Amino acid sequence: ASSASQMDNQRPRFTEFSYASPPIKDLMVHLISTVESKMESMLLPCTLPQDVQYFENQSGTAHASLYIRSGTSSSPIDFILGSWLHCELPTGGALSITSLSSYMNTSTDAPHLVIEFIQSSPTSLVLIIDLPPRKDLVLYPDYLNKFYQETELDKQRQLLDKITEVQPYVSPSLYIRSVFSPTAIVFRLDSETERLEQILRDDVSCAAKEVLGIWLELCVLGEKGEVRDDEKAHLKKRDSVFKSKSIETDIGSALPRMFGQETADRVLGVLQALL
Amino acid sequence: ASSASQMDNQRPRFTEFSYASPPIKDLMVHLISTVESKMESMLLPCTLPQDVQYFENQSGTAHASLYIRSGTSSSPIDFILGSWLHCELPTGGALSITSLSSYMNTSTDAPHLVIEFIQSSPTSLVLIIDLPPRKDLVLYPDYLNKFYQETELDKQRQLLDKITEVQPYVSPSLYIRSVFSPTAIVFRLDSETERLEQILRDDVSCAAKEVLGIWLELCVLGEKGEVRDDEKAHLKKRDSVFKSKSIETDIGSALPRMFGQETADRVLGVLQALL
Repeated sequence: ASSASQMDNQRPRFTEFSYASPPIKDLMVHLISTVESKMESMLLPCTLPQDVQYFENQSGTAHASLYIRSGTSSSPIDFILGSWLHCELPTGGALSITSLSSYMNTSTDAPHLVIEFIQSSPTSLVLIIDLPPRKDLVLYPDYLNKFYQETELDKQRQLLDKITEVQPYVSPSLYIRSVFSPTAIVFRLDSETERLEQILRDDVSCAAKEVLGIWLELCVLGEKGEVRDDEKAHLKKRDSVFKSKSIETDIGSALPRMFGQETADRVLGVLQALL
Repeated sequence: ASSASQMDNQRPRFTEFSYASPPIKDLMVHLISTVESKMESMLLPCTLPQDVQYFENQSGTAHASLYIRSGTSSSPIDFILGSWLHCELPTGGALSITSLSSYMNTSTDAPHLVIEFIQSSPTSLVLIIDLPPRKDLVLYPDYLNKFYQETELDKQRQLLDKITEVQPYVSPSLYIRSVFSPTAIVFRLDSETERLEQILRDDVSCAAKEVLGIWLELCVLGEKGEVRDDEKAHLKKRDSVFKSKSIETDIGSALPRMFGQETADRVLGVLQALL
């Protein structure tokens, strides 16, 4: 028991972002601390088992951390989910994924939050910053207007799109493409390391903070619109497909390859219990 | 009366595409004739008034043609809508828009069809080729799978995306961005005229014909999946918002500016009666 507790003490904590590049680590620490301080009364403590909060593969070439806090019953939050994952590649490089998402519950129809960085080399990364809509925007133009048009979310996308090193990124998964809003920031950034880190510190950090600020103000702390019972049932079904398909596509396919089936099953089991 | 009928005879017909560049004209003639021959038994004749089939502004600097054929009651088609619009710009250039759309009725949930070219100069155009989904893809992954994944529609988008002169295009309208499928071909093409026309003749024509072929086979001529009554009601509502918002954003805002309020009202009145 004493050796197990020593091992636990050596495990990196989620908020250490042990393998993220410095500008991503700094940004994520800022975002998480903003979320936790603004939403303090809404979130329960993280109760994940230690071996899901941090785990690695047998050869020590892959490391990951999960962090989940459920919302209180009176909050608009289902749960927030932070994760990082670092994996040495056979080619010599490494893949590093860092993300923060928040899923809403059915007391509101306000959008979810997704922020994710997928860095495949010191000179190339994919960034995703979006408030995925909870309703079909084709059928509900008022919803589009309230959460995306009037908030001027597209300004943040446009600012990043003007940067020479920034290109649109198209996910290989058609489902993942479908979940994003029309103002989603979904870009690839290719540049030598110093310039790439400068864009992350200056432009990307600014956009991420702005989008998070809009989401906190309008979707979390703002007045909840009333959700009728039949709408609740519909939101519940849609959210459930959204969460399971997103997590399945994102983490579900990578974990067995990187950590082996046993670890993957343990981690996915904990995640699936949330869905 | 004799002078009016002479005028009518001088009016360009829709299928003449009087102002389109040669490769766009050739492609549109091919697409329309394919649609009309494959769907012959499904379409009623065009019954638009002469002054809506063709109209121009007072100074003769703007010209447009509309072409609408409704589907028969046993067909899966609500109506097909072709249009072209040419407008001299104060800057000396000209704007030329050419489009072919098909809207489905509620006997099927299969996707609509949209093909559109917006040419703002001899060296620059926007092209849109898509099968806009009729259901919320986040909630219905099976629908996404059937119409977009298994048809390998994304191959056509990927082929065009590889061409150096082709860049993603982002519509200024958030609503228009929302209606497209995840495999939508929504690109800008910038190049000197000869190369631009070559890309239109070779690559764009090929993609448009492939997408039209998939749509005809799977959505129009293929076996209709059964649509339950509650689904019909939902499709009807969604299609109605889709049609009115699309036409309002696309044609509704341009017509008064280009043709004056009187002509715009006459044309939009005819269109709105269809929605």
